Amino acid sequence: VTFRYGFRFLVASAFVLVAPTLLAQVQTALMPLPAKLEMTSPPQLLRLGPTFSAAITGPGAVDPRVRPAVLRALHRLSRQTGVFVAEKVSDGAEQVTLLVTVEKSDHAAPQQLGDNERYSLVVTSSQARLVAEAPLGVLRGLETFLQLVQVGTGGIGLPAVSIQDGPRFPWRGLSLDVSRHFIPLEDVKRTINGMAAVKLNVFHWHLSDDQGFRIESMKFPKLQELGSDGLYYTQAQVRDVIEYAYMHGIRVVPEFDMPGHATSWFVGYPELASAPGPYSVIRQFGVFTAAMDPTKESTYQFLDVLIGEMAGLFPDAYFHVGGDEVDPKQWMANAEIQAFMKKHSIANEEALQAYFNQRLQKIVAGHGKHMEGWDEVLQPGIPTDVVIQSWRGQKSLAEAAQKGYEGLLSNGYYLDLMFPASAHYVVDPLKGETAALTPEQQKRILGGEGAMWQELATPENLDVKLWPRLAVIAERLWSPEAVIDVASMYQRSEVISRWLEFQGLGHRTIPRRMRERLASSLMAEGSAAALDTFAEVLEPVKEYTRADSVGGYTQSTPLNRLVDSIPPESDDARRFRELVDHYLANRQANRADLDAINEQLLRWANNIPKVMPVLTSNALLKETVPVANNLQQIINSGLEALDDLKSGKAATPDWVHSQIAMLEAAAKQKAEVLIQIEPGVRKLVEAAGQAKK
Amino acid sequence: VTFRYGFRFLVASAFVLVAPTLLAQVQTALMPLPAKLEMTSPPQLLRLGPTFSAAITGPGAVDPRVRPAVLRALHRLSRQTGVFVAEKVSDGAEQVTLLVTVEKSDHAAPQQLGDNERYSLVVTSSQARLVAEAPLGVLRGLETFLQLVQVGTGGIGLPAVSIQDGPRFPWRGLSLDVSRHFIPLEDVKRTINGMAAVKLNVFHWHLSDDQGFRIESMKFPKLQELGSDGLYYTQAQVRDVIEYAYMHGIRVVPEFDMPGHATSWFVGYPELASAPGPYSVIRQFGVFTAAMDPTKESTYQFLDVLIGEMAGLFPDAYFHVGGDEVDPKQWMANAEIQAFMKKHSIANEEALQAYFNQRLQKIVAGHGKHMEGWDEVLQPGIPTDVVIQSWRGQKSLAEAAQKGYEGLLSNGYYLDLMFPASAHYVVDPLKGETAALTPEQQKRILGGEGAMWQELATPENLDVKLWPRLAVIAERLWSPEAVIDVASMYQRSEVISRWLEFQGLGHRTIPRRMRERLASSLMAEGSAAALDTFAEVLEPVKEYTRADSVGGYTQSTPLNRLVDSIPPESDDARRFRELVDHYLANRQANRADLDAINEQLLRWANNIPKVMPVLTSNALLKETVPVANNLQQIINSGLEALDDLKSGKAATPDWVHSQIAMLEAAAKQKAEVLIQIEPGVRKLVEAAGQAKK
Repeated sequence: VTFRYGFRFLVASAFVLVAPTLLAQVQTALMPLPAKLEMTSPPQLLRLGPTFSAAITGPGAVDPRVRPAVLRALHRLSRQTGVFVAEKVSDGAEQVTLLVTVEKSDHAAPQQLGDNERYSLVVTSSQARLVAEAPLGVLRGLETFLQLVQVGTGGIGLPAVSIQDGPRFPWRGLSLDVSRHFIPLEDVKRTINGMAAVKLNVFHWHLSDDQGFRIESMKFPKLQELGSDGLYYTQAQVRDVIEYAYMHGIRVVPEFDMPGHATSWFVGYPELASAPGPYSVIRQFGVFTAAMDPTKESTYQFLDVLIGEMAGLFPDAYFHVGGDEVDPKQWMANAEIQAFMKKHSIANEEALQAYFNQRLQKIVAGHGKHMEGWDEVLQPGIPTDVVIQSWRGQKSLAEAAQKGYEGLLSNGYYLDLMFPASAHYVVDPLKGETAALTPEQQKRILGGEGAMWQELATPENLDVKLWPRLAVIAERLWSPEAVIDVASMYQRSEVISRWLEFQGLGHRTIPRRMRERLASSLMAEGSAAALDTFAEVLEPVKEYTRADSVGGYTQSTPLNRLVDSIPPESDDARRFRELVDHYLANRQANRADLDAINEQLLRWANNIPKVMPVLTSNALLKETVPVANNLQQIINSGLEALDDLKSGKAATPDWVHSQIAMLEAAAKQKAEVLIQIEPGVRKLVEAAGQAKK
Repeated sequence: VTFRYGFRFLVASAFVLVAPTLLAQVQTALMPLPAKLEMTSPPQLLRLGPTFSAAITGPGAVDPRVRPAVLRALHRLSRQTGVFVAEKVSDGAEQVTLLVTVEKSDHAAPQQLGDNERYSLVVTSSQARLVAEAPLGVLRGLETFLQLVQVGTGGIGLPAVSIQDGPRFPWRGLSLDVSRHFIPLEDVKRTINGMAAVKLNVFHWHLSDDQGFRIESMKFPKLQELGSDGLYYTQAQVRDVIEYAYMHGIRVVPEFDMPGHATSWFVGYPELASAPGPYSVIRQFGVFTAAMDPTKESTYQFLDVLIGEMAGLFPDAYFHVGGDEVDPKQWMANAEIQAFMKKHSIANEEALQAYFNQRLQKIVAGHGKHMEGWDEVLQPGIPTDVVIQSWRGQKSLAEAAQKGYEGLLSNGYYLDLMFPASAHYVVDPLKGETAALTPEQQKRILGGEGAMWQELATPENLDVKLWPRLAVIAERLWSPEAVIDVASMYQRSEVISRWLEFQGLGHRTIPRRMRERLASSLMAEGSAAALDTFAEVLEPVKEYTRADSVGGYTQSTPLNRLVDSIPPESDDARRFRELVDHYLANRQANRADLDAINEQLLRWANNIPKVMPVLTSNALLKETVPVANNLQQIINSGLEALDDLKSGKAATPDWVHSQIAMLEAAAKQKAEVLIQIEPGVRKLVEAAGQAKK
């Protein structure tokens, strides 16, 4: 890619730049942005070399998380810079390059909601001092330290800064569905690495759903034996993940979705359901009718044993019971259930779920946990001890907070919808209806969770669907409310996206490998590069249109087509649209943009003859030939508009109308992808119609 | 890369080609080549579509390895082609796309040396029939089946063929050192996947050395606790790997290297050594002096317990005790050992090691295993039950075979030497001194093992050092002796290299990511691509010159420089040299090659100004600036030679001499890399001196 608009000033070797730009440079490399950052003046550099050393001091140094976290950071520093960094820390030595101080001893395990995460990081030309009140702050501050380090022309080092930092919300998570497509242990751990790198602190593990029960139960082994196709975590593996997450400063909250979304349970235990079986694991996606029978005492006896077992396994104080999207059909069709409702004056199926949740809450509380659930669990009679995770939005959260419930936001943070980072970035748990809450009520808004539902994601393309967009959500939940500049966010997310990849995530590398696989039928050099260039302008279709349009997706459908190999958001297409906007904002002053636009369009146009043999070489790619044809039309339209804009004569209304009609048709999804430079081209065409500069 | 010489005829969509080239096309996609392959005439295609089905028949279908292997193959087929392939097999149904027949029931676990691996694969336009006498043949045949499948213009399918196949040697392995750099479990499993894909059948696990003891002992826990920095496999993990390997048709042979190469043991158990401790884990590389004390009974008591524990863990019939490179210094300096030798008439230190090995062999045999060791264990008095792994070569093997010992070859297969694939390909266990053995003696040559020593390899760059060269060694050990065409090997290895990557290996992707990390200091688009193009002409220095030249390598040295990110062999440089050879073979007829040579040199030359800012942007890359300067000189020299060759007038002897002197200097390693187009350019310069066509 030779397209550079909006990119040049991102040169990351901050310390060779002059003072005025230095602050912007430093911020470039940080995500989430810290609460407070100051530069020393004049700018100084802490150089890193073979004499690098580290020490830990303070009463909190004995916490089991601190030393391993520092050692991991040294290992990553070494890998990132090539500087030989001895992976050892001394105790209490002051004359070291990195001095970590933990002021309070805090042996509390498990990690609790609200545990102190604050830190300060002061870098001078001779030392970096990371001071945290409690152990978690060390983990957060080390990520900031690593993000600051640059390998530049002048050497390797980090700029002198003074940072005071702490999170805005105490609950910052990722909800990961491992039911619809199983995610193996190493991919879970890799995801936890990424979460820690952007200061998230809750891994919400959606362990069961209609399509799979993914955790071993000793008490009810048919849950995993019959409900998972053998793809589940053993309890030893779960303990491994919990320990791993703890060491990374992350809580693990398990979710067992009930009474709906539970078909996989019924394969082994059909007696739990509200209609006779047999049941089999669901292979399709959607909302299904099977639901637990809330009227049988045996249901609660079962749940008491299972929740008891799982409450013993998961140390976190919160226990998620799902509760979403219950289809009442089975309840309505079951005469015994209807009789029960009549007998107990339960007015309707919603009230029946309320009854279920009241019973469930007692069981969960009986095992020492706070119950958490989706919006639907918030029904009359539920104690305010329950935490609401909202897929419905701020209104739902605000109503809950007014009634005394704590809650967190996931609406607006659904990563499976394929929305751009900016769409998530503008969503704030305390904007909208929650903004009107009293300060006391606002405190009940604990934060939020990105949510990744796995209908169309596999271990192979999980990373590209999570990153870097999850880092952007992490910033929303960590950084001050005033941090809202979208342009700054995109600049930094491009840097952080690379940095995250170098930490071991695969969101940039793996999709490229998928495209190389697609292009390999034509055993010609350059095939994969041509496909990469073609893919630059594309994004997957948005929301849930993809599964709907094809309809045939199941758990076994291979996700290996072009649409599966491209990021949810195209940086190149976004930059193209930004360039068009920049030109249109001041056509006279920014005439030079026309050349850049022209160059970029020609680059994509010149690639079409190169990519066409690739697209026709492979049965998987053939569906994208019409996309290439549409792209050609869109580019042609843009080039013609550029001619008019350069010459200054207005295009005819007829031409504009015909072009707009063509663009509308060409912008429609084909092969489940969208050509995302079309909105920019459309603006050019419209502008050409009103030409004369 | 736009360079296409020798590449066009590799178009992989075999079935759209005409008959005469079809056989070559099919072979293109296979490695190792099968013993016998015939095409149907006229060529036909078995199409794969959504109706694809598979079944297993025969008495051997009950073997625990067969059904999972077929299911894995279906999963990979699905991923490879995008065809929805139901991952299920029926029993005995004949009307299926892939019918697998296992003629004999063979429940024998563990897998034994010599277990039947033969299979036949007959593909017609309506069905693929894979028939194996025993379960292992199914696993081997499935890999051939998958290699044959192509996604092409005509659709997805495989050509009709008839293959009869079986291995030339029964022992085809990889020896992997996990001591010098620990290799985590998932990387071991990934390596096993790759081994299975090219029909290797022995994973030789070099578990201990001076730099680390990498496996948990319950009997002597200080071995791993003090000898591994915490980087070791638990016994549960080892059992997991053994089971995983078994399911992939691979034996696991553990190696515990002794009496030398054992410093890591002595950290926890200094009493085993021949000189008083304390000892610490060795961080440097080389041969060290610490050795077990072969004169103490307590040494043998210890080994009896440890080997007993490990013999129970590893089910394979062979147990490797190392035995290589014992430095006699400690023995010579220890008065008690010297006294013991005198008392027992042990003439010298070599005889003392022979004594040790005799005792050791009894212990190993006492636990029901055959002892295996490196050349040095072959000493007077050792029973012929012992198997020799030869790092010394065919002469050593031939001598052993004459004495009745079985052996396998590793000399010539050391992958850490960074030799080209062709260097390994020409090495044959039955050529050289072994060729003169009687047929009966030749049967004692069991095969060979690629050997990967881990001084300079990490989990990150392991794959690029193994693949695709290990596939080439696998072909040498599997395919008929007559399969020796180097050009064919390279053509096929380029295809197989991609295929292996799509099976999940990272030898192509990960180095590119490493270079992207190196190039990321300059936050400019195109940086990584420029570095990739620069790297095309480079290879790491050969043999052990790298560690020697710097001297400072230790276990903790980051391996993240350019030299660590490039493959041992450059395909582009090799093709350039082949192109020069092609021209020089018939300068008159092949004049058109001069244009191709010119184009290629200009491409690399034009990249130098692009890559230079990248090289100077990063402290890790700066060392390669002289490489770029040398490359520029080499290319200039080549371009001048081309001018002379085109014009037909001979260059002056002075010019030739000065150019050769310059080339010699420029070809010297800088930054531990070599510019591998230099030999081709030198030939052009020499030819220019004798010009006149």
